[in-house]
Amino acid sequence: MTARVRVPASSSNLGAGFDCIGMAVDRWLVATALPATGREISIRRRGRLTAVSVTVDDDLLARGFRAACAAAGTPGTGAAIDATSDIPVGCGLGSSAAAIVAGVLLADAALELNLTRPQIVEIAATIEGHPDNVAPAVHGGAVLSVRTSAGLVSTSLKVADGLELLLVVPPFPSDTKAARAVLPKTLPHADAVVAASRAAALVQGLATGDGALLGAALDDVLHVPFRRARIPGYDAVVVAAHNAGAFGATLSGAGSAIVAIAPCERSTAVGAAMIAAWRTAGIEAELIRSAHPVPGATVNRIPSLSHPVSSELS
Amino acid sequence: MTARVRVPASSSNLGAGFDCIGMAVDRWLVATALPATGREISIRRRGRLTAVSVTVDDDLLARGFRAACAAAGTPGTGAAIDATSDIPVGCGLGSSAAAIVAGVLLADAALELNLTRPQIVEIAATIEGHPDNVAPAVHGGAVLSVRTSAGLVSTSLKVADGLELLLVVPPFPSDTKAARAVLPKTLPHADAVVAASRAAALVQGLATGDGALLGAALDDVLHVPFRRARIPGYDAVVVAAHNAGAFGATLSGAGSAIVAIAPCERSTAVGAAMIAAWRTAGIEAELIRSAHPVPGATVNRIPSLSHPVSSELS
Repeated sequence: MTARVRVPASSSNLGAGFDCIGMAVDRWLVATALPATGREISIRRRGRLTAVSVTVDDDLLARGFRAACAAAGTPGTGAAIDATSDIPVGCGLGSSAAAIVAGVLLADAALELNLTRPQIVEIAATIEGHPDNVAPAVHGGAVLSVRTSAGLVSTSLKVADGLELLLVVPPFPSDTKAARAVLPKTLPHADAVVAASRAAALVQGLATGDGALLGAALDDVLHVPFRRARIPGYDAVVVAAHNAGAFGATLSGAGSAIVAIAPCERSTAVGAAMIAAWRTAGIEAELIRSAHPVPGATVNRIPSLSHPVSSELS
Repeated sequence: MTARVRVPASSSNLGAGFDCIGMAVDRWLVATALPATGREISIRRRGRLTAVSVTVDDDLLARGFRAACAAAGTPGTGAAIDATSDIPVGCGLGSSAAAIVAGVLLADAALELNLTRPQIVEIAATIEGHPDNVAPAVHGGAVLSVRTSAGLVSTSLKVADGLELLLVVPPFPSDTKAARAVLPKTLPHADAVVAASRAAALVQGLATGDGALLGAALDDVLHVPFRRARIPGYDAVVVAAHNAGAFGATLSGAGSAIVAIAPCERSTAVGAAMIAAWRTAGIEAELIRSAHPVPGATVNRIPSLSHPVSSELS
């Protein structure tokens, strides 16, 4: 049985929701897997995935596929995976999470593992190291993921009508490991208090569309102050977004992309202002507009597939 | 014109909502003010307020009254204030916030200052030092208060049906200043990240009634670990609440009261278990049950009042 999945990009953190909140973004990784005898996995990469140069064993599609088999207690099989994507790679748009989730879902569907959605999120989050991209990639929309005594809980957040994400993506990736390394070991207690109130403000601001709350939520103190110097032009792009009418702007994930949240009626102006601000700094960025709600991953099982996903993404 | 106000108690922090989230509690301060010539304020204290022993100038009713006049740009007048309350004083149930809010509202109503609700919250929060009790005392229900570039925003949180607050109040107050003094100057960054995710979990858990989220939210890392040793029997009461079916329990404000959130159908058992746990430790506590929603402060202006509020609270 060939399995076919379609997994969205995502923007995590959204300012104060560090490592716990993410939102699906309207860019997609599409992949098929045809189970094969033996253990070998082959991957044909197309679209933005041609930027990926790791070995097959280190490929996140293969790692997700194998982790799903392991979690289901089966040795699994080999597979011929064909994948394409229009998600920029390594820019804070959840390209890794999409690949991991795709691998897990492909194994689940092709091998009929019957994993639950919470299991799928947990398996993928374990590989990724944090759940904030994985959960919206699976569930769609905006998702809060919290470790509780009952395990990892991923819960869909209400998002007010009329909000749009504007993501501007520069032509250079961000090194996520380096972005983690710049975080301090300790924080003033007062900053932690502010951070907590702004994480609460993010949940409430998304639900109500309150611009002041969203503005506070996007003005993070937990990670952005330590990371923004790594992204040339960051401050200018954020100011430009504000001035054009965004509620706020911040790093998407650990960057390099910058995400703004704006009311739909101002989103065209906000996107243009962000692109222009980076252009002034000599950086040609790509604009991705993403209106809520973006659905989560979908899976199909198909008896045969003569032309796998080739016409899926232009 | 005599003004009459009725202001609820409140439970702040609720675990991870440190200094930003509070919920109105079904206990009340009721007060009247009759404006008088000159500048002198007299206060007749009844009910739980007989525990207050400060001078009139330092009384929070008087301070609220005068701060409201100052904010409105008027020297104000004197007043004869008559106040009674069934809110335990100094136990983390917002007795101070209720008195401040009552003072502000009395001046606003008696002297027709026409203050807005946000102004009233801001004036009272400035005296209190933080807005998390003041805001629910004014607005009722559960309220998130966040400092934003547009000033202090207080926003009503959605609370799922069927949740009840159980507050157990020991016969000793907590020294709020001392409770602040035990907080550390810095915090591990990882703890701040957990704290932020749990603040988000509190907003989402209240809205959805998700027990796992509420449990994580009530398990605070920002202030409770440093304060709980000040409250004898704290751990036993929290464990008893859990075991009886509460989603979680934590300090109400800075204590000394402990608050649990439980589903209504288990709330009787939870309250009894908390009281019993403290009794085992030799402490006779008082139980306050408070089902959401508790309304906010109400104000009346009345032409004359021959028997001010005397029959209001038994």
